[in-house]
Amino acid sequence: MKIIILMRSLIFFGVFSFPFFVKSQPPRGPLVVSPQINPDKTITFRYLAPAAKEVKLSAQFEKSPVPMTKDAQGIWSVTLGPVKPDIYPYSFQVDGVTVMDPANVGFFPNERFKASLADIPGDVPLMHAMRDVPHGTVSYEYYSSMEGSTGSLVVYTPPGYEKETSKKYPVFYLISGTTDTEETFFKVGRINFILDNLIADGKAKPMIIVMPYGNPLARIAEQKGKPKPADLVSREGADAISRAKVFETDLMTRVIPHVEKNYRALSDRESRAIGGFSRGGGQTLRAAFGNLDKFAWINCYSSYLSPAEMESNYNNIISKPEVTNKNLKLFWIGVGDEDFLYKPAVEFMDYMKSKNINYKSLISSGGHTWMNVKAYVAESTPLLFR
Amino acid sequence: MKIIILMRSLIFFGVFSFPFFVKSQPPRGPLVVSPQINPDKTITFRYLAPAAKEVKLSAQFEKSPVPMTKDAQGIWSVTLGPVKPDIYPYSFQVDGVTVMDPANVGFFPNERFKASLADIPGDVPLMHAMRDVPHGTVSYEYYSSMEGSTGSLVVYTPPGYEKETSKKYPVFYLISGTTDTEETFFKVGRINFILDNLIADGKAKPMIIVMPYGNPLARIAEQKGKPKPADLVSREGADAISRAKVFETDLMTRVIPHVEKNYRALSDRESRAIGGFSRGGGQTLRAAFGNLDKFAWINCYSSYLSPAEMESNYNNIISKPEVTNKNLKLFWIGVGDEDFLYKPAVEFMDYMKSKNINYKSLISSGGHTWMNVKAYVAESTPLLFR
Repeated sequence: MKIIILMRSLIFFGVFSFPFFVKSQPPRGPLVVSPQINPDKTITFRYLAPAAKEVKLSAQFEKSPVPMTKDAQGIWSVTLGPVKPDIYPYSFQVDGVTVMDPANVGFFPNERFKASLADIPGDVPLMHAMRDVPHGTVSYEYYSSMEGSTGSLVVYTPPGYEKETSKKYPVFYLISGTTDTEETFFKVGRINFILDNLIADGKAKPMIIVMPYGNPLARIAEQKGKPKPADLVSREGADAISRAKVFETDLMTRVIPHVEKNYRALSDRESRAIGGFSRGGGQTLRAAFGNLDKFAWINCYSSYLSPAEMESNYNNIISKPEVTNKNLKLFWIGVGDEDFLYKPAVEFMDYMKSKNINYKSLISSGGHTWMNVKAYVAESTPLLFR
Repeated sequence: MKIIILMRSLIFFGVFSFPFFVKSQPPRGPLVVSPQINPDKTITFRYLAPAAKEVKLSAQFEKSPVPMTKDAQGIWSVTLGPVKPDIYPYSFQVDGVTVMDPANVGFFPNERFKASLADIPGDVPLMHAMRDVPHGTVSYEYYSSMEGSTGSLVVYTPPGYEKETSKKYPVFYLISGTTDTEETFFKVGRINFILDNLIADGKAKPMIIVMPYGNPLARIAEQKGKPKPADLVSREGADAISRAKVFETDLMTRVIPHVEKNYRALSDRESRAIGGFSRGGGQTLRAAFGNLDKFAWINCYSSYLSPAEMESNYNNIISKPEVTNKNLKLFWIGVGDEDFLYKPAVEFMDYMKSKNINYKSLISSGGHTWMNVKAYVAESTPLLFR
């Protein structure tokens, strides 16, 4: 088997070398399997780095980075757990440098950090598991946005959408957090599988979910050939409010018209919901409170508005609670008890209560994580469009 | 502006901290803009690593890694170029560790390495530029695959597909290389923008492009809860042929029926094309030569089959060249003159010529790169379905 042995040296960066007589390429070293999810819910992480002095594993199910050990091939590994089934962001710290797992295609789309995803399945399929049920489709869609720019959307259409060509669907607009992208609810939140499962189980109504990018100012700058300035992604104080306004304008005047033109979308207010996580939750509250003629359903994940902003900008909402309560078919707020926004979120709820605004709330355990976001999506989307 | 200054310490891993009284989180350090494409086509790369001893930039437009220098904040940077406009994979080497650019969302989906993408626009928009033309949609689609597994496809539908609900379209099946994924032709190849532009310019027929994942054996193992074994992603000799057979079976018995059931796809052989890069090119040739009743158009990018395999497995193709030539509306082969598969690809062409099989070929400059793949797509898709 001389040819086969010879071939082992011919693997090249990102490509395949066919058998028989090809020009040699530098070897890529041994194949590494990582993460390996073991039947007992432990996870083995591996990273090839023969020359590294220290490699640690940093994962959202561990309080602090865990040392890994090196084998004779130079592969560092550690087995952790058993771990509670869920999807966890993780990365390697290689001599202090944070690195995604090169062997894992599952990753966290974000503008400021890179993490890989470890998916530990449950004995019973979890809310986000890819089950053998009818699957919806996730589409990357482009639209004409402000100042001549082209915006991008990720859109979930439910199972059957392509076939039932006379049916129209309600729409849930769903916004990611700061430095997340329009892909994050798909790639990390597994919004498609959560909805596929809820719909298959008869727990959620079939709906379209539209996921915009939350920072149109930065995108416009980029497309004008300007470097994306650092100050366009900073986010403080009054500035956050004015930027949320840009987002709201893009949503109301560009995104929604595009969706209602290109998808079979119901367009009455009771067929429109809006929700978001973190900064996207703030954008949600502002867009909804500023356009209550357009939205009847609000899902706020790990976010809030301050009483000061409510009183100066959304007096319409708090001054006539009976009208607000009649208009809002759902006002849902979820936050984790270890979330760094827990306290202001609870103050926001207390404030809304003091103003006699009705809401449903879920205080979960845990922090400002996508493990929690998935749980909030699974809890709140079944309540929509009822 | 005390509040604003205070807020600078509150930015948290992946999320946004709203103003006013939130629980403090560890700071993430200064915002880094990278890559910054400058008007003169130079590129500035930046990486934050105050404690690193040496950071280099490795890019496919440079022969070897380039040293970067550190500023007082701990941000390493280097400005390179001017660079010929195109999209180039790059990564940082931080004390010898290969790292994607954390500030850049553009990345190369691959099962074995992680690279970021730098997109240098042309003065005249390049073939893959996002121009202000009607845009198609890219969809992530799931299908019922072999052994009870669920396969995934990325599908491009052309501009107007959603609106012209009585129109049917030809389909181009397009397969990535080894360790690439079903996303690579979208995320790196920008197949959607290339086709949007060609269609807008009247150069290509509107078509559906279906991009499957090339390694169904590995996916099946994973979904059965088995760790993806290292030997399932090795690829040598006769083994490559038997694995291509599994792919072919999945394509013919699962993927195509799913597509023709769920999309408005023309289903005669003259409305079906197949193409692929590297390993995907080998899979293309085998699937096409084995199913010439199903495909009339072949695009082979940077790949080949050996004369030995042709003679043992595809005698039907070479023994009756007049029939083959009549059946093949297009047989297109592209390869780069620095491609490590250049020699066997040219031998393959010479062999086909010696057998009187007609083909069109493009020998480009450069290597086994996605810069070349994009060029091949732009050259060959206009020839389809004519």
